[in-house]
Amino acid sequence: MKVMERLENKAPKLESMPKGFYTCSKNLGIKDETLDFTVILSSQLANAAAMFTQNRFCGSPIPIGKKNVANGKLQCFVINSKNSNVATGEEGINNVIEMVNLVAKELNISADDILPSSTGVIGRQLPMDKIRKGIKNLNEIMIEGGLEKSAEAIMTTDTYPKIRSVKIGDATLVGIAKGSGMIEPNMATMLSYFVTDAEIPSKTLQAILKEAVDQSFNMVSVDSDTSTSDTVAIMANGLAGKVDIQQFKEALNEMSVQLAKEIARDGEGATKLLEVVVNDASSFTQAKKIAKSIVNSPLVKTAIFGKDPNWGRIAMAIGKCEDETDIDPEKISISFGDILIYQNGPINDDNLKRILDYLENPVISITVSLGLGDQKATVWGCDLSYDYVKINGDYTT
Amino acid sequence: MKVMERLENKAPKLESMPKGFYTCSKNLGIKDETLDFTVILSSQLANAAAMFTQNRFCGSPIPIGKKNVANGKLQCFVINSKNSNVATGEEGINNVIEMVNLVAKELNISADDILPSSTGVIGRQLPMDKIRKGIKNLNEIMIEGGLEKSAEAIMTTDTYPKIRSVKIGDATLVGIAKGSGMIEPNMATMLSYFVTDAEIPSKTLQAILKEAVDQSFNMVSVDSDTSTSDTVAIMANGLAGKVDIQQFKEALNEMSVQLAKEIARDGEGATKLLEVVVNDASSFTQAKKIAKSIVNSPLVKTAIFGKDPNWGRIAMAIGKCEDETDIDPEKISISFGDILIYQNGPINDDNLKRILDYLENPVISITVSLGLGDQKATVWGCDLSYDYVKINGDYTT
Repeated sequence: MKVMERLENKAPKLESMPKGFYTCSKNLGIKDETLDFTVILSSQLANAAAMFTQNRFCGSPIPIGKKNVANGKLQCFVINSKNSNVATGEEGINNVIEMVNLVAKELNISADDILPSSTGVIGRQLPMDKIRKGIKNLNEIMIEGGLEKSAEAIMTTDTYPKIRSVKIGDATLVGIAKGSGMIEPNMATMLSYFVTDAEIPSKTLQAILKEAVDQSFNMVSVDSDTSTSDTVAIMANGLAGKVDIQQFKEALNEMSVQLAKEIARDGEGATKLLEVVVNDASSFTQAKKIAKSIVNSPLVKTAIFGKDPNWGRIAMAIGKCEDETDIDPEKISISFGDILIYQNGPINDDNLKRILDYLENPVISITVSLGLGDQKATVWGCDLSYDYVKINGDYTT
Repeated sequence: MKVMERLENKAPKLESMPKGFYTCSKNLGIKDETLDFTVILSSQLANAAAMFTQNRFCGSPIPIGKKNVANGKLQCFVINSKNSNVATGEEGINNVIEMVNLVAKELNISADDILPSSTGVIGRQLPMDKIRKGIKNLNEIMIEGGLEKSAEAIMTTDTYPKIRSVKIGDATLVGIAKGSGMIEPNMATMLSYFVTDAEIPSKTLQAILKEAVDQSFNMVSVDSDTSTSDTVAIMANGLAGKVDIQQFKEALNEMSVQLAKEIARDGEGATKLLEVVVNDASSFTQAKKIAKSIVNSPLVKTAIFGKDPNWGRIAMAIGKCEDETDIDPEKISISFGDILIYQNGPINDDNLKRILDYLENPVISITVSLGLGDQKATVWGCDLSYDYVKINGDYTT
């Protein structure tokens, strides 16, 4: 059985911080009195890369972030929670532009070097009076470090802030993330930001960020719904000099997977982390598609919640990938942990009993072999509990 | 606001029965003491057509039904509930063959004219001793009519049997259906059977069945999971002579839509029927894809359950159809019933308040205009409630 690195619900203490990053996290009063705004500033223009949601109804900040990171340079992330500024028309776009301009002026940097993000309720205009007031004199309250507070400020209904830090040679990489949470009529939005003082060219940064995201955040699904605001971005300000790129790449990959798993485990109402591995596929695309079909199936998710060894639902979720015409039930095997339960027919009742015990674990691993080739994919998700329905249905105006 | 034809939870009294159809519905003891087996026999070989699940992990009866209906002729449907005979390997296939042969012998018909179906738990072999015993002397207990009992015998956790009847000229068409239910570790399976004494050539029957299914059963989704056993089949024995084909087609279409809506409304744990209409799409495929994305979104479904006017989630569900590259938020409008809530930005708070009232209705209609073309699609689903999680998660061995 695979065990997660950390199962306790709190952010680890950071061992190290990258040089030259300053933050400010505060409450602007967008919705309540919790932190709802953070600014992460590099003391100098940094090489940068970012990836964004594919959702066609994307948030107003997205096109502005895309434009600003296009030259591979950024100096600042500006993020608010509690309002996603999505489906807000032209007024919404004007509000992001104003917000970015105000921050640029306060921090004496170029507005074109800012990547803005918003997460929260859809379809409401940002309370610009509060935002204007809150940004005033920002420069006076910026502190060195403070990324733990930033991790807190970007939360919606995450139950704890997600932050990690690692040393690569003389440099440090810190990553923060928020998962799918809902506070109000809101979106499951995934945001993650990395900052490092390593010196890495923009093009390299873009390539390794993409690789890391493809194996981590793109492999997570809480409820199959794709947020309008998903953003992952990195700034590398170079203050610690050059690093071993291979080492950095591995560190970024590992951190991304850890943060992605934390997002899955902290999914709305989740009681268990679900890891689905599809082996022996004819392509990575096929493996990923089938793994996601399993991890997203409401019937599989409710079975895991109910500790029900209902492996037939896994068979169904494999089979419903109808376009994968080479799927052959006779070649498939299905296991929970290392307990085989299907291989050209059901395995004995003894294994079914062992699975019942296995399902008591906080991390459930499902492994499928397709028997078609040598490609594999691993995805993460969570169970579907009463609390998911409660969090997302119990809204009253 | 659209209102369903019937909202009470019981099957209507049949006004008419087609000539020459005999049934037997009984308990074989597959799981408990409720009806779990039904045979629907035409007194003479009937023209026939059928459509089956696309799931690659399909039930053992599916290939046999496909083979037997290939010549456009059937004389008998044989259906058991409480065990789906899926993922049961070669033994499972041998069991269907034996079951079909036994029924054929008892009823003195050809085994090749029987369409078998099974619905229920996956991954367990049929209790063949009980089945052999139960089929014995079947011919002595067949009765004329009795389709109401057949509708009951195919149920799993449907809360009521679904059956409809209509006259077309001198002929009668009766349809029965079961929806997504779960009794045990089980599948959401949709089965529907039609019988008529109209005289209709097999090829015509196949064409009009496909048209009806595409606009009805294929437009329903309870939880996005595709069953391994879905089957829709029709027998037309011709005893009432020729009918107006156009009239028959319209009757079959309407009955299919009605049964499909009943399946959606009686989805597991459902408290509301959800109807999603996507208008002004550039193609039917696009309209259907977006409508299904909305009706399947866990965030939309929980919002409807919670009577939450959270239209932003509808925007998200539209936008996550990433391959539909012509989607343009500026051209889109979103309404609940006839209350407009989004058109290039949120509509006023007054409409939001009206939607709060609207969400008290048992049938919720969501209409989206894409502003791209003149194609449309209508799909049906249901909300996602605590009871869905309970029914599907509360299994204990």
